[in-house]
Amino acid sequence: MQFVDVIACKRDGGALSREAVDLFVDGVVRGQIPDYQASALLMAIVLRGMTDDETAWLTDAMVRSGDRVDLSDLPGIKVGKHSTGGVGDKVSIVLAPVAAACGVTVPKMSGRGLGHTGGTLDKLESIPGFRVGLTIEEFKATLRAVGTSIIGQTATLVPADKILYALRDVTATVESIPLISASIMSKKIAEGSSALVLDVKCGDGAFMKERARAQALAESMVAIGTRAGVRTEAFLTDMDAPLGRTVGNALEIAECVDTLKGQGPDDLTSVVSRLAARMTLLAGLETTANAALSRASAALASGRALEVFTRMIERQGGDPRVVDDYGLMPVAPDHETFTAWSDGVVTRVLAGSIGRATHQLGAGRTTVGEPVDHAVGLRMQVVRGERVKKGQPLLELYHRGGRGLDAARALCREAIHIDEAGQASPAGDRILGEVR
Amino acid sequence: MQFVDVIACKRDGGALSREAVDLFVDGVVRGQIPDYQASALLMAIVLRGMTDDETAWLTDAMVRSGDRVDLSDLPGIKVGKHSTGGVGDKVSIVLAPVAAACGVTVPKMSGRGLGHTGGTLDKLESIPGFRVGLTIEEFKATLRAVGTSIIGQTATLVPADKILYALRDVTATVESIPLISASIMSKKIAEGSSALVLDVKCGDGAFMKERARAQALAESMVAIGTRAGVRTEAFLTDMDAPLGRTVGNALEIAECVDTLKGQGPDDLTSVVSRLAARMTLLAGLETTANAALSRASAALASGRALEVFTRMIERQGGDPRVVDDYGLMPVAPDHETFTAWSDGVVTRVLAGSIGRATHQLGAGRTTVGEPVDHAVGLRMQVVRGERVKKGQPLLELYHRGGRGLDAARALCREAIHIDEAGQASPAGDRILGEVR
Repeated sequence: MQFVDVIACKRDGGALSREAVDLFVDGVVRGQIPDYQASALLMAIVLRGMTDDETAWLTDAMVRSGDRVDLSDLPGIKVGKHSTGGVGDKVSIVLAPVAAACGVTVPKMSGRGLGHTGGTLDKLESIPGFRVGLTIEEFKATLRAVGTSIIGQTATLVPADKILYALRDVTATVESIPLISASIMSKKIAEGSSALVLDVKCGDGAFMKERARAQALAESMVAIGTRAGVRTEAFLTDMDAPLGRTVGNALEIAECVDTLKGQGPDDLTSVVSRLAARMTLLAGLETTANAALSRASAALASGRALEVFTRMIERQGGDPRVVDDYGLMPVAPDHETFTAWSDGVVTRVLAGSIGRATHQLGAGRTTVGEPVDHAVGLRMQVVRGERVKKGQPLLELYHRGGRGLDAARALCREAIHIDEAGQASPAGDRILGEVR
Repeated sequence: MQFVDVIACKRDGGALSREAVDLFVDGVVRGQIPDYQASALLMAIVLRGMTDDETAWLTDAMVRSGDRVDLSDLPGIKVGKHSTGGVGDKVSIVLAPVAAACGVTVPKMSGRGLGHTGGTLDKLESIPGFRVGLTIEEFKATLRAVGTSIIGQTATLVPADKILYALRDVTATVESIPLISASIMSKKIAEGSSALVLDVKCGDGAFMKERARAQALAESMVAIGTRAGVRTEAFLTDMDAPLGRTVGNALEIAECVDTLKGQGPDDLTSVVSRLAARMTLLAGLETTANAALSRASAALASGRALEVFTRMIERQGGDPRVVDDYGLMPVAPDHETFTAWSDGVVTRVLAGSIGRATHQLGAGRTTVGEPVDHAVGLRMQVVRGERVKKGQPLLELYHRGGRGLDAARALCREAIHIDEAGQASPAGDRILGEVR
């Protein structure tokens, strides 16, 4: 089989054989297929698509390109979680301790932020001393002792994805549901969970802006997981506005702790509870949705979830006193209030622009490897649907000596729409749908 | 402008700006755009197409990537000719002298054979001493003295095409009408003709198998030429069966000389006359089709076309005595007759299989730079539509000690269909249509 014939097959809308998919992935990893052939095939895949078979084979070949974490010596059903990323998306940091407090073992490998979306690892590193680079042995010891652990992906997991993603990034071949699904699912499968809950974000601050695309991505990932023997369920959640009230690393950790104390924003608390309940069901710890939801609420209300979080911080080298003293985390030296320019109803708070605003303040990174400023960010003082008066604070910007402040202000102005004739309305449910 | 955004634009079905097209071609030629980005864009172009504007800009950028031959100091309207290539396609070798004998100046840069199709340069090199590598000065001196000259493309013409074609060849991005048009037309425009006649082959032995694709290619090339100020007209000609009766380098030259002597096969003579008439009209030497056709016929009948050919051979270092003694060209040491296996009517002689048969005998090359055997090939003794008896010779295979003979026989068997119940019919017109 000549690789140029594989490219031609996909160019003409054909389906690749399992052998052709293996040839592609193995060839790319071994450097036997040149980048220019790989990128031509990637573009053909973006424009011609892939069948469920092809996507499953691609995922499998990617998983086999590296190590697969073996968690079989840990007791129970290990339930992983993945979010496609958003603005103010701090779900994992609250959810992992809540689900663990429910009795689920939650191994969680997370990523760093890039562009307008934040990264779980960056947020956790706001906690002094917190180590995300555990060895697999340390990871498993933490899971055994605490029930959850959140670390960075190890270097030996899915090398094919690292190579392909770098190529896709510079050849405009990122936006393909089969390629995105295979990239995400190969990593989640290699991480060794027995079941998986996916949080597919949808809206202005998400990678998938449109509901139909988000639905298709969720369906694709659920199909791949199921075929790979990892029971997978997905939630579609609204990322048109930032989740919770804070955006920025240390600010979000503080909000996570508030939530674990039962004092979090409604939208975040609700998403966490629903996902934790689903993980409890997948782990076989409850059999009805209502019982699972009660168990999740109890884990929060009893303080057990907060305790799990505190112990996880401690096991991972962090200072557990942050849960009582947010001032132990980096604090921005300066802040200013951004106020309403008219009376009316806040009809939208676009997450993409809000994310870019905090990026301007220094909370994010533009290129891989850049440091982030853990202290800066913003806190919203209103939510969508709320009535405001001219001059009323809309949000607080936490900055460092004015760095990026002008741009951030402009982006906040762009993000928020005040409808003078609008009607106040309650915030809608963040969960738009489920795929099982 | 980031190049990844150019790729994304085409991926999403957008039209590139002139600046984007220039960025692409200049970047590829200067090595500033990596191959993997270029191939991703090429695949997006294959699948999304290009507008007439984009194709014209691409052609123009490619022309500007190298030198453009200046023929303005030669008198009259210089009319070039290009064929998209076929099996037994020897039209240029007869047409150039005929048109020159009609008074047209015919500068002709040709290519070498690859795969199942032969190349004009390889055929001409069957003539002992014939040089296809003239300098531009020698080329112009020959054009001035004889009225025509057939040479290889100089190295400084359209370097962008050489780079892009090599990349397209290994990334399955050859098959795109805008890319094919731009590749062909950039070279023809750079060759400096003031007008151009295209012979777009269609059928089993041609690059374009389907009439509609051949029509689209012809229309695209005519549009590009016209926009570039080169008056361009195209013929669509039938390449389902080989043209003329011979396939193979020296054998085809002998057939060309026969044709110049008025003793050629009807199909070749007819195509040459029609194209020569069209070139005469484009050169402004006649104003009606009938007068132009008469002039072409007279050029053949008077022996003036043969005289031009003989003088061109002499000017280009070849032995002009070949026109009287074909034995001065390489002659295959062995031959055998391939006979009819049943009574019936020959309903098809597939040019692709016949081309591959002569390739097996050694007449062609598989990779660029390989030598060809000028002596071997085949001569058909029947044409489509003819009634044959079992055991009657269908064709003569000229081989060298049996090299490739078994494979060639099998391909000839595959190429020819004898319909036992068929009705004899006259050979149809090779010219299927015209685009002006």
